[in-house]
Amino acid sequence: MKLGRTLKMGMVGGGPGAFIGEVHRKAVGLIGQIELVGGAFDIDPAQSKQLGKELNLNPSRVYENYGELIKKELQLPVGERMDFVTICVPNNWHFLIAKDLLEADFHVLCEKPMTLTTQEARDLVNVVEKTERIFGLMHNYTGYPMVKLAKDMVSNGDLGEIRKVVVRYSQDWLATALEKTGQKQAAWRVDPKQGGASGCGGDIGTHAVNLAEYISGLKMTHLCAELTAFVEGRQLADDANCLIKYDNGARGVLHVSQIAAGEGNNLAIWIYGEKGGIEWNQEEPNTLQLKPLGGPVQVWMRGNDYVAAYSDAAGRATHLPAGHPEGFYEAMATIYLNFSDTVRAQIMSAKADPIMLDFPNVEDGLRGMLFIETLLASAESEQKWTPFKN
Amino acid sequence: MKLGRTLKMGMVGGGPGAFIGEVHRKAVGLIGQIELVGGAFDIDPAQSKQLGKELNLNPSRVYENYGELIKKELQLPVGERMDFVTICVPNNWHFLIAKDLLEADFHVLCEKPMTLTTQEARDLVNVVEKTERIFGLMHNYTGYPMVKLAKDMVSNGDLGEIRKVVVRYSQDWLATALEKTGQKQAAWRVDPKQGGASGCGGDIGTHAVNLAEYISGLKMTHLCAELTAFVEGRQLADDANCLIKYDNGARGVLHVSQIAAGEGNNLAIWIYGEKGGIEWNQEEPNTLQLKPLGGPVQVWMRGNDYVAAYSDAAGRATHLPAGHPEGFYEAMATIYLNFSDTVRAQIMSAKADPIMLDFPNVEDGLRGMLFIETLLASAESEQKWTPFKN
Amino acid sequence: MKLGRTLKMGMVGGGPGAFIGEVHRKAVGLIGQIELVGGAFDIDPAQSKQLGKELNLNPSRVYENYGELIKKELQLPVGERMDFVTICVPNNWHFLIAKDLLEADFHVLCEKPMTLTTQEARDLVNVVEKTERIFGLMHNYTGYPMVKLAKDMVSNGDLGEIRKVVVRYSQDWLATALEKTGQKQAAWRVDPKQGGASGCGGDIGTHAVNLAEYISGLKMTHLCAELTAFVEGRQLADDANCLIKYDNGARGVLHVSQIAAGEGNNLAIWIYGEKGGIEWNQEEPNTLQLKPLGGPVQVWMRGNDYVAAYSDAAGRATHLPAGHPEGFYEAMATIYLNFSDTVRAQIMSAKADPIMLDFPNVEDGLRGMLFIETLLASAESEQKWTPFKN
Amino acid sequence: MKLGRTLKMGMVGGGPGAFIGEVHRKAVGLIGQIELVGGAFDIDPAQSKQLGKELNLNPSRVYENYGELIKKELQLPVGERMDFVTICVPNNWHFLIAKDLLEADFHVLCEKPMTLTTQEARDLVNVVEKTERIFGLMHNYTGYPMVKLAKDMVSNGDLGEIRKVVVRYSQDWLATALEKTGQKQAAWRVDPKQGGASGCGGDIGTHAVNLAEYISGLKMTHLCAELTAFVEGRQLADDANCLIKYDNGARGVLHVSQIAAGEGNNLAIWIYGEKGGIEWNQEEPNTLQLKPLGGPVQVWMRGNDYVAAYSDAAGRATHLPAGHPEGFYEAMATIYLNFSDTVRAQIMSAKADPIMLDFPNVEDGLRGMLFIETLLASAESEQKWTPFKN
Repeated sequence: MKLGRTLKMGMVGGGPGAFIGEVHRKAVGLIGQIELVGGAFDIDPAQSKQLGKELNLNPSRVYENYGELIKKELQLPVGERMDFVTICVPNNWHFLIAKDLLEADFHVLCEKPMTLTTQEARDLVNVVEKTERIFGLMHNYTGYPMVKLAKDMVSNGDLGEIRKVVVRYSQDWLATALEKTGQKQAAWRVDPKQGGASGCGGDIGTHAVNLAEYISGLKMTHLCAELTAFVEGRQLADDANCLIKYDNGARGVLHVSQIAAGEGNNLAIWIYGEKGGIEWNQEEPNTLQLKPLGGPVQVWMRGNDYVAAYSDAAGRATHLPAGHPEGFYEAMATIYLNFSDTVRAQIMSAKADPIMLDFPNVEDGLRGMLFIETLLASAESEQKWTPFKN
Repeated sequence: MKLGRTLKMGMVGGGPGAFIGEVHRKAVGLIGQIELVGGAFDIDPAQSKQLGKELNLNPSRVYENYGELIKKELQLPVGERMDFVTICVPNNWHFLIAKDLLEADFHVLCEKPMTLTTQEARDLVNVVEKTERIFGLMHNYTGYPMVKLAKDMVSNGDLGEIRKVVVRYSQDWLATALEKTGQKQAAWRVDPKQGGASGCGGDIGTHAVNLAEYISGLKMTHLCAELTAFVEGRQLADDANCLIKYDNGARGVLHVSQIAAGEGNNLAIWIYGEKGGIEWNQEEPNTLQLKPLGGPVQVWMRGNDYVAAYSDAAGRATHLPAGHPEGFYEAMATIYLNFSDTVRAQIMSAKADPIMLDFPNVEDGLRGMLFIETLLASAESEQKWTPFKN
Repeated sequence: MKLGRTLKMGMVGGGPGAFIGEVHRKAVGLIGQIELVGGAFDIDPAQSKQLGKELNLNPSRVYENYGELIKKELQLPVGERMDFVTICVPNNWHFLIAKDLLEADFHVLCEKPMTLTTQEARDLVNVVEKTERIFGLMHNYTGYPMVKLAKDMVSNGDLGEIRKVVVRYSQDWLATALEKTGQKQAAWRVDPKQGGASGCGGDIGTHAVNLAEYISGLKMTHLCAELTAFVEGRQLADDANCLIKYDNGARGVLHVSQIAAGEGNNLAIWIYGEKGGIEWNQEEPNTLQLKPLGGPVQVWMRGNDYVAAYSDAAGRATHLPAGHPEGFYEAMATIYLNFSDTVRAQIMSAKADPIMLDFPNVEDGLRGMLFIETLLASAESEQKWTPFKN
Repeated sequence: MKLGRTLKMGMVGGGPGAFIGEVHRKAVGLIGQIELVGGAFDIDPAQSKQLGKELNLNPSRVYENYGELIKKELQLPVGERMDFVTICVPNNWHFLIAKDLLEADFHVLCEKPMTLTTQEARDLVNVVEKTERIFGLMHNYTGYPMVKLAKDMVSNGDLGEIRKVVVRYSQDWLATALEKTGQKQAAWRVDPKQGGASGCGGDIGTHAVNLAEYISGLKMTHLCAELTAFVEGRQLADDANCLIKYDNGARGVLHVSQIAAGEGNNLAIWIYGEKGGIEWNQEEPNTLQLKPLGGPVQVWMRGNDYVAAYSDAAGRATHLPAGHPEGFYEAMATIYLNFSDTVRAQIMSAKADPIMLDFPNVEDGLRGMLFIETLLASAESEQKWTPFKN
């Protein structure tokens, strides 16, 4: 089933205490054939070294910064050298590091949001095109098998023409002024310089719209948005609500919040078409509801043969049998699975099977930045509808 | 517990085949001390007579029209005469009949929406004030005990200052062009002359905003709305989405649809405050979720002593013990309970206990019409925010 | 749709403060064409009179006791006379009153359990046969439309041959010594003389096994039971657990409890066959899960056209459209609907449509008593299996 | 937080195509500081070699069989040598391999059931005692943080004295004669020689009773069991139902099935005490319901601070923040976390923190075998109750 060799992986960011970097490393362990060989994990080289030790890495491949990483790795022969590098640094560094890595011939998997500005995103599209490197973006929620099943149901026409898309993304971890308590995750997110100008709109809203476009196959054309910062003294929005127009005439509602008291990571989507609807909730990711017009609701349960029989993509994204719950790690692992198989195909000069290409890429990153740009423009506009500049 | 005598009830509308009229009659049976004595049920007197027969009514009190009803009932002595009349006719008749009944000294309970225009609504406010009759409006969803519990939680400050209100009202019964098949319920609702100009915005959106204002205690100040008619050939919106501003600075999202394939009568509300959130779903009305910031979610279950101990209003609205599911009829019955006790108090020249006054009234009806007016204005506006005219 | 005239109903028991009597009266109001005309409601005639007044009954038909009721009603002409009488007295009186009423030519609807002993139950079967009166037993849970749908799924073979039946009935209202606080409902239930010897086994266990046999179409042949009284000083079991053998070789598990802290009226059933399973929960009665082997779970939702298209019995038992929750009252109303239509057919010398006969009858009552008898025998036996004496 | 060095892990079994071995390897990757260095993975050495290659293992440490593993590993210095070995072979080999490894001074983590007979289990208890090696048993369901929270709630007295324990474990993967289709997982499980004599009673029943005893802190004293093989031609039970007595007088119900059509891996537990109840479902493992008598149900959600504040064990078992779903892998990882920290403490001659000792051990394995022995004895007995021989 596996083709080709184990890939060598590097990482920029993800130092001690960084949440998402550790998740990346563990997710990678769930798919196999990827070996973390080194990185520049922390702005403080001592911290980086310490982490490298805990991870049993060769100290010579734990670098002081990503510049050194590029320089030294390029001195290693292909096959020993890092095949791809994961970027898990604060948002403001994404673009620069990704660009440098790509131009130095590394494949790249980057945390979202891809860049801070639309212009950077367009530039990165060009860099990827020019360098012909594989670029993956970690919109992990599209890695869930039931999300892939949903996408296939829509594209197979089970729902008919799509009319309405509702996405909710509710959290409560910023319901108080956590950023003033020294919590690092909170601090950089509410700082416009590090997190970008859009607050929760970019931080979690991009996940939400990526999910909506991924499943529905539609593209947003207009936004009507409002952004609010509810917590006193906060500069960036902790709550965002949008009306959306899609390219086929469908209408959308998006509401995201980081002050929704009592909610953990409550991302959910409802899509309604002429013939049926679907509903999926990230906090119970192992089921997907299909609601055919005029028939019983169907609850499709991950891991069953009938799921894989219907959707190759969902089957491929499945790690455990039915009834053995999967979660967040597995979804991220699936993104890595498809990304790494595509990298491997390229290394072997093989053509990637279309199913391998099912991971968020630089175009999705550009869509995300366009969304943020349009969101901010709409939030400042007195006009109801702000079109996407494409 | 009961005070005073059994009330005599009349009904205008609710003839054979009319859905809601029959529901009213049955709901009334769940509370006792109200006796339906007659009515003008149908535009076709023969149909009216037939229904009277089925209901074991005295044929002399089954009238040809509401004019005859008023005239003949006034000839009966008080105590025998109808104490109040329920109005269940198409929307365009609500105002006129209500006005005439009130001015003829009858108390009135009217289906929603109260009128077709804001002007009529204002006029009716004046009529009620002048006649000093009791006027009830059937926003039945506020009759659910767990809704009353939610209201009390908010007003007691359990949620802290309210920041966000999300309301969803999804149905699918108009997902196809049902109005072209001769279905009467569908036909009048999509006809601007009978149903009003706002389609699903008025038909179910008014329920949704009434619920939101009832529980939250907030008032909407601005709407940003869009209305869409998805089904080909339909004149009125079958889908409506709004952003909302509330008077305390809270933000709201409202999305209602009658083309949400696979949904029955999926009305749900989420309210988030500084200290906690609540969630309630009409299709599972016997539970209310309270989500305190930083603590476990609490599922309050109708009928338990701890519910009544917390909320008199919820306790009073409870018809059956815990675990014995209540539903739609009981919610409507509770509206009648409070309305009829208020009528009875007035008849006895007693002061109504504040808890009896907990039913939707003429002011709620005016709010509903203001909502519809603002919704239509916003939907036609290119400006983002349309303020409520108050 | 309705055939024939409104039936006159009487009631023995159900006086002020009696829970279930009032539920009967209100349930009857939900179906129409039944009019409560009188009764002997309370052992204290003054209480009876008072209730009659509240119910607007003719005082001459509020009787001192059921003997007087029989005597005086028989003096009225048929058509004015009570057509049937509902019995809502403590269990120990069921047999005697039912027998006398039947022999005096009244149709009877009786609360469960039908009698205190199997012998009485057998006698009552004979009385019903001899008098040719209609006898209904209030196992209200079989009145839920989704229960009827489940029964039809099983009998249509959608599940294949049945292999396993699990029933749970968990309550907590007797988790403390409530009977010592003067609570009447508790007091008679834990008194062997009034409630029978089986405690929760009879009180709620009979509902559970009736439900299981009703849906599955199977008959229990053997029990292996244990009964426990957990609350100190209580004579009757407040917890009961059974293994069951059914006549086709299927196995069953039944566990009922009135000390299951935190549970309201948590009756649920799971039936598994060769081709699929079903699950139904009384506290969320508007849905039924069908679990086909090898396919998605299907959630059938009450009130939809596809339910009525599949099951006439479920369609007929439906009072409100999809999404408008029904509950306990409606289930009981459906028992009355079928019972009363059968009575009406007999009055009109018509043949009852088989669908009207779908209500618990005297044979079900005998099954209940056999269950209690076998339960008690098994609980006292050291043998694993105790067969039903048939 | 981590103490000491990375442990070297070996594995016996878990060759290509073996489900659970791969799960072990991936679970280990989620906790860090454990490195798989070699093993004897398959009865076919070529398969073993192939897997070693895929896992990037040093080929010299991929052994032909476990005997060679022991011999060769012992030639390596401590620190380089495997610190512990995981056993993932068919059940009939567990005892022998575990014994040999322990006696050769390796710590051992073994799949369940621990042995085939009670005698072997007693022997292994002695071996563990004598060798003073650490022995872990993979009852992975006790690794879920919400299970640990439940255990702490019970031991803290939140539920009061326990009265009733209900456990359900329903699957459907053996609903048809899968073993005749060549499916290996099915084939060995229904073969008495490889899987043991108890069928689903041992295969999944042991998990269920381990979970019940773990959370409740109670010990079973008597069983009343029946075993059934529903699928034609099957020798071992695919369905098992038990009544249970616990040492404090509590009563239990256990029903497990592998023919419950439509169920995946539906393990759920309800425990009721004098003051409250709890409910936990393995298929939605991130929540725990606490049902205090007389108060709202509380839904505790994994990953929140309030969970860790209440229960150190649950906090320690948590891998991801609230709302980021965990599943089966993480539960197994937690077993490894505690097991490996205990091994590490022993290596460092440190005293293991009691919280590290929270993993299933050889005594749990013996309890499992006693359960199976008692289950089989009871199933063959005509007596209702069969006591545990202790």
